[in-house]
Amino acid sequence: MFFRFFPKSFNFFELFEKQVSHAVEAACLFKAIVACGGVTEDALSRMATIEHQGDDVAHRIIDQLNKTFITPFDREDIHSLAKQLDDITDMINNIVSRLRVYGITCVDQNLVEFSLVIEQSVRAVARAIGGMQNHKHGQVVFEACVEINRLENVGDAMRDHALSELFANAKDPILVIKWKDIYQEAETVLDVCEDVAHVVDSIMVKQA
Amino acid sequence: MFFRFFPKSFNFFELFEKQVSHAVEAACLFKAIVACGGVTEDALSRMATIEHQGDDVAHRIIDQLNKTFITPFDREDIHSLAKQLDDITDMINNIVSRLRVYGITCVDQNLVEFSLVIEQSVRAVARAIGGMQNHKHGQVVFEACVEINRLENVGDAMRDHALSELFANAKDPILVIKWKDIYQEAETVLDVCEDVAHVVDSIMVKQA
Amino acid sequence: MFFRFFPKSFNFFELFEKQVSHAVEAACLFKAIVACGGVTEDALSRMATIEHQGDDVAHRIIDQLNKTFITPFDREDIHSLAKQLDDITDMINNIVSRLRVYGITCVDQNLVEFSLVIEQSVRAVARAIGGMQNHKHGQVVFEACVEINRLENVGDAMRDHALSELFANAKDPILVIKWKDIYQEAETVLDVCEDVAHVVDSIMVKQA
Repeated sequence: MFFRFFPKSFNFFELFEKQVSHAVEAACLFKAIVACGGVTEDALSRMATIEHQGDDVAHRIIDQLNKTFITPFDREDIHSLAKQLDDITDMINNIVSRLRVYGITCVDQNLVEFSLVIEQSVRAVARAIGGMQNHKHGQVVFEACVEINRLENVGDAMRDHALSELFANAKDPILVIKWKDIYQEAETVLDVCEDVAHVVDSIMVKQA
Repeated sequence: MFFRFFPKSFNFFELFEKQVSHAVEAACLFKAIVACGGVTEDALSRMATIEHQGDDVAHRIIDQLNKTFITPFDREDIHSLAKQLDDITDMINNIVSRLRVYGITCVDQNLVEFSLVIEQSVRAVARAIGGMQNHKHGQVVFEACVEINRLENVGDAMRDHALSELFANAKDPILVIKWKDIYQEAETVLDVCEDVAHVVDSIMVKQA
Repeated sequence: MFFRFFPKSFNFFELFEKQVSHAVEAACLFKAIVACGGVTEDALSRMATIEHQGDDVAHRIIDQLNKTFITPFDREDIHSLAKQLDDITDMINNIVSRLRVYGITCVDQNLVEFSLVIEQSVRAVARAIGGMQNHKHGQVVFEACVEINRLENVGDAMRDHALSELFANAKDPILVIKWKDIYQEAETVLDVCEDVAHVVDSIMVKQA
């Protein structure tokens, strides 16, 4: 067991689990917003709160990292994880702000589907992070990472489909600008989830 | 005093101060260009010169880093700082090129305000970098980093405001494409300044 | 000779050469597609195959890196190279997908020129990677890196020229959206080639 050797190391895992729980919250709220068809003031401010909480945890991780000499795994991996988990929440918050800024009051089916895939992927990220702490859960982590990679491919296809549809039917160029941006941002959330899976995968291999 | 222990280490601080001085120059020139309402040939070539000078310093830092065994702080932090300070100058230069490429001859008030906030933020970056060399200036560095973070939030709100306005009043989609791009690039300069603040903050914490 | 000291280290160079050969294949196919004036189903699926092969090699490099204690050069440089060589193939594949998604059946002269410069740059990347393994080839590596940097500047000028033309003659905003995206992606391929040149350069300096 790896952690026996570093009994006094700070518990980074606890903070990572906290951080990913904010990402899950953001993904769920995003799904709810999209299901309702538009952004309310209340939803916007709840999302901002989640984003701030996620930010706080990220800062605590980086602070702790800078103060800790012995870490449970490579420093740069801790740094990457904190940054990428923060990015997930940030980017979901961004999409919601964008819906607002663009005055989009009616959400299309493509974005509804994106919100479902994003929620699945972020939940898989949570399983991967949750399983990292215990070597017995290697299989759980592995399966979660495979799932995240699969969903990233699903997202690529969804974006290509959504963009093809958008450009094929485009009448209003302003709408094209708005939706192109939103679809791309939605797909990028899945890319960042995949980045997390890569880091988690690396950590597991190094400790094997 | 940290540097007593590494009396022969190359003086990276001197180069970082030089590099940030080019970023400040770029920010000031950008403010002047925007205040005049458009890009002249002369301004374009002065900006290109500043960008090349910044580039040169970045290369010297990386070269020196590759040749130096003992560095005053973590190698990856030196690398990040050199890259990010270079990015600030590059991105300001990019905005100016974009104004030219898009044939924008009349700059709007939102960009004028961005140019003021960018200048403030880059000057705060200069204070942070300048203070790093001496532990007595910890408070100066800290305050500069807080200011950079504050200005990044101001920039986010400015971009959202500018985009909302742009899309609400959009008649000409080509203009929307151009200005959306320019506002986003302007906001990204403030993001990069914030990245610098994070690295500086990390360096200070590690040395505390 | 550097490798005498690490006789048992895994042969990363072989995998890097394999990875860059996929990037060269992608660049050649892209040139052929653009020369024909549009994307066929067959070309699309051949490009996807190349991209998967490149991906596989990247994963093998990262896996090996995670399992290898002593590496021929800095771990983070190996990681960056694997990532960036993968990005070259990915991004060329992306442009081709984009041509498809945007329903572009007639390619313009600017993209033809981009495809020629991209092929030249990726071939220079291949020469740089190929030369790294043997210190006698330092001059070859150096010249390849200079060439990559030169082509990146050429690409910047090509993008600015193409965008100026696009916006000056813009009648259909939807076409502007499509081509702006494609030119920028084309230019980004050259940026990534330059990133490779920087890493290669760093590796050579550290080993000198």
